[in-house]
Amino acid sequence: MSDLISKLEWRYATKKFDPSQVVSQDKIDFILEAIRLSATSSGLQPYEVLVVTNKAIREQIKPHAWNQGQITDSSHLLVFAAWDNYTAERINQMFDLTNDIRGFKNEGWENYRAMLLNTYPQRDAETNFQHAARQAYIGLGSALIAAAELKVDSTPMEGFDPVKVDEILGLKEKGLRSVLLLPLGYRADEGDWLVKLQKVRRSRDQFVTEIN
Amino acid sequence: MSDLISKLEWRYATKKFDPSQVVSQDKIDFILEAIRLSATSSGLQPYEVLVVTNKAIREQIKPHAWNQGQITDSSHLLVFAAWDNYTAERINQMFDLTNDIRGFKNEGWENYRAMLLNTYPQRDAETNFQHAARQAYIGLGSALIAAAELKVDSTPMEGFDPVKVDEILGLKEKGLRSVLLLPLGYRADEGDWLVKLQKVRRSRDQFVTEIN
Repeated sequence: MSDLISKLEWRYATKKFDPSQVVSQDKIDFILEAIRLSATSSGLQPYEVLVVTNKAIREQIKPHAWNQGQITDSSHLLVFAAWDNYTAERINQMFDLTNDIRGFKNEGWENYRAMLLNTYPQRDAETNFQHAARQAYIGLGSALIAAAELKVDSTPMEGFDPVKVDEILGLKEKGLRSVLLLPLGYRADEGDWLVKLQKVRRSRDQFVTEIN
Repeated sequence: MSDLISKLEWRYATKKFDPSQVVSQDKIDFILEAIRLSATSSGLQPYEVLVVTNKAIREQIKPHAWNQGQITDSSHLLVFAAWDNYTAERINQMFDLTNDIRGFKNEGWENYRAMLLNTYPQRDAETNFQHAARQAYIGLGSALIAAAELKVDSTPMEGFDPVKVDEILGLKEKGLRSVLLLPLGYRADEGDWLVKLQKVRRSRDQFVTEIN
């Protein structure tokens, strides 16, 4: 039972990657598949993932992410980019896909579609984006476990200027807004101040309350 | 390599639990430990988890969660509740704990503490809560995988009135706001419209973009 726990214990926010080590395509595919299969609200999957290996583009991003070396030293840079809004088109696409794959229309499901169509597109775009952005964090949770399972190091990052990253990656035109960066690679032998330090979490009694 | 993928494929948002089946304490502990070990921004762990088994309290919650039967039919109801704000006290507590556990003060880490103290408490509470709430979704990602590893069924839920749930659980007094519900248990043999339907996700090329 402790396999998952040991993976969560093993991982840490890598501070220095070895730029000479490349993560193999099958491992990247595995991590992406774990994200793709992750739960999202109403199954809408309201985000996309960009996999940036291009060095010039990563050099452009770096100054807008506190010049963190992981942006360029990592093997692959994942960018989680959430829908900037819930539109009727996007909602219908997902419900239509569901009907296509399952091969039939379900009345309850169609009522649920109608409820979402009557609710989400009418809300302001910022509310919808914030909701979509949260879903990307579920995928991040899966990605961190998937990477640890493969002994691939990772650094979840919120510390960047999303407007600049959106510009560099042309996300606005795609109706997306960057939410999270996740460099993937292999830790350097030296220069990572965090790697040998103990993971710190509040004790269970400071984190969990039982109401029996 | 496909063990994690098969867990993600196996899980689904359970629509009907068997109320006679109880998840063992060691399994609940495992799921909680996976959440507790999950990554959070700056390691602040800005949320708590309540484990509600009390039937009367769950009956009180149910009408404020669209009367969904999983609230009361599940074995355990997890409530993810995020900090309502980042305060200097909360930030210092986490940095002090880190120093205690690691047994020394790190200059870079102390500079980072000062930076957070000069930034987070000055922001409005709603911005801080929204940021804290996102972190709970990383824990949800871990919880769903942990539950699937144990073949425990689960139903991630955002569809509830958080103000009412906060009142019922006395969260406001604790500086917390409910963000997510996660009923855990075992699926019923009958009455779950979703259990036999195929999981639907956009294809990889509709979800992933490579920038080489």
